[in-house]
Amino acid sequence: MSEHELRVSKIRNGTVIDHIRAGQALNVLAILGIDGSEGEAISVGMNVPSDRMGRKDIVKVEGRELSQNEVDVLSLIAPDATINIIREYEVAEKHRLERPERVVGVLSCPNSNCITTGSEPVESKFEVLADGVRCEYCETIVRDDLAAHISVK
Amino acid sequence: MSEHELRVSKIRNGTVIDHIRAGQALNVLAILGIDGSEGEAISVGMNVPSDRMGRKDIVKVEGRELSQNEVDVLSLIAPDATINIIREYEVAEKHRLERPERVVGVLSCPNSNCITTGSEPVESKFEVLADGVRCEYCETIVRDDLAAHISVK
Repeated sequence: MSEHELRVSKIRNGTVIDHIRAGQALNVLAILGIDGSEGEAISVGMNVPSDRMGRKDIVKVEGRELSQNEVDVLSLIAPDATINIIREYEVAEKHRLERPERVVGVLSCPNSNCITTGSEPVESKFEVLADGVRCEYCETIVRDDLAAHISVK
Repeated sequence: MSEHELRVSKIRNGTVIDHIRAGQALNVLAILGIDGSEGEAISVGMNVPSDRMGRKDIVKVEGRELSQNEVDVLSLIAPDATINIIREYEVAEKHRLERPERVVGVLSCPNSNCITTGSEPVESKFEVLADGVRCEYCETIVRDDLAAHISVK
């Protein structure tokens, strides 16, 4: 294989996030706090053909297994995603995302008067609706572009 | 190949940016104004093994050839990068980046009193130094994290 091919080898240990809605891969990296600066091997495919979805994104991260908090937020921006935990080159666990009933501490409220956005040490809490999320403090509803409100690192 | 493998096929027409300094791939996408939302097929590898560089990043973009302006800024954050223009699956052109003497309109000056950052319609101009860039108006020197000062889209 020439050096001009992107070599995407199997990962030994880590996570493959597959069936991400097309165009959301960079938001997935943002949720995971990944920008490549820590030296971990990462592969990203955007708008790749998929039998099931037409087009999809896919992210492979070496040496990292997702936390439940991270999975919860992923489910909001990439509801069709599947998560495969890889150990010693084999799929050790396979998860389909389920929307949580609430997400705590991972989204920031867009209402600048909300108690969670001030200097008080109050963690954000959002109830998950069919088509968005609602702040449990000020009842602001966020429907579009949830990725822009992610505060978890 | 299973669906859990990232399929990175040859691109038919587009650009392969290879030998990007490890950890800079997302900044390269930012310079190119690419976030996957326009449906173009993109592959990104971060921290992949390289004979020449130890580790490197690589970006493949389907259906896009870089402009000279984009190449100029790329040379500042990814000075070792090579650019391969692909047409009909073949490498049609191969470029090594050269640092320009100046970059016009692509970086924003960090000095909030600089004439280029106010409401005047004055385009930024930076002289390229060995280890950074210098604003031609206010002489502010930027050495670190040039990527944070990119204003081109």
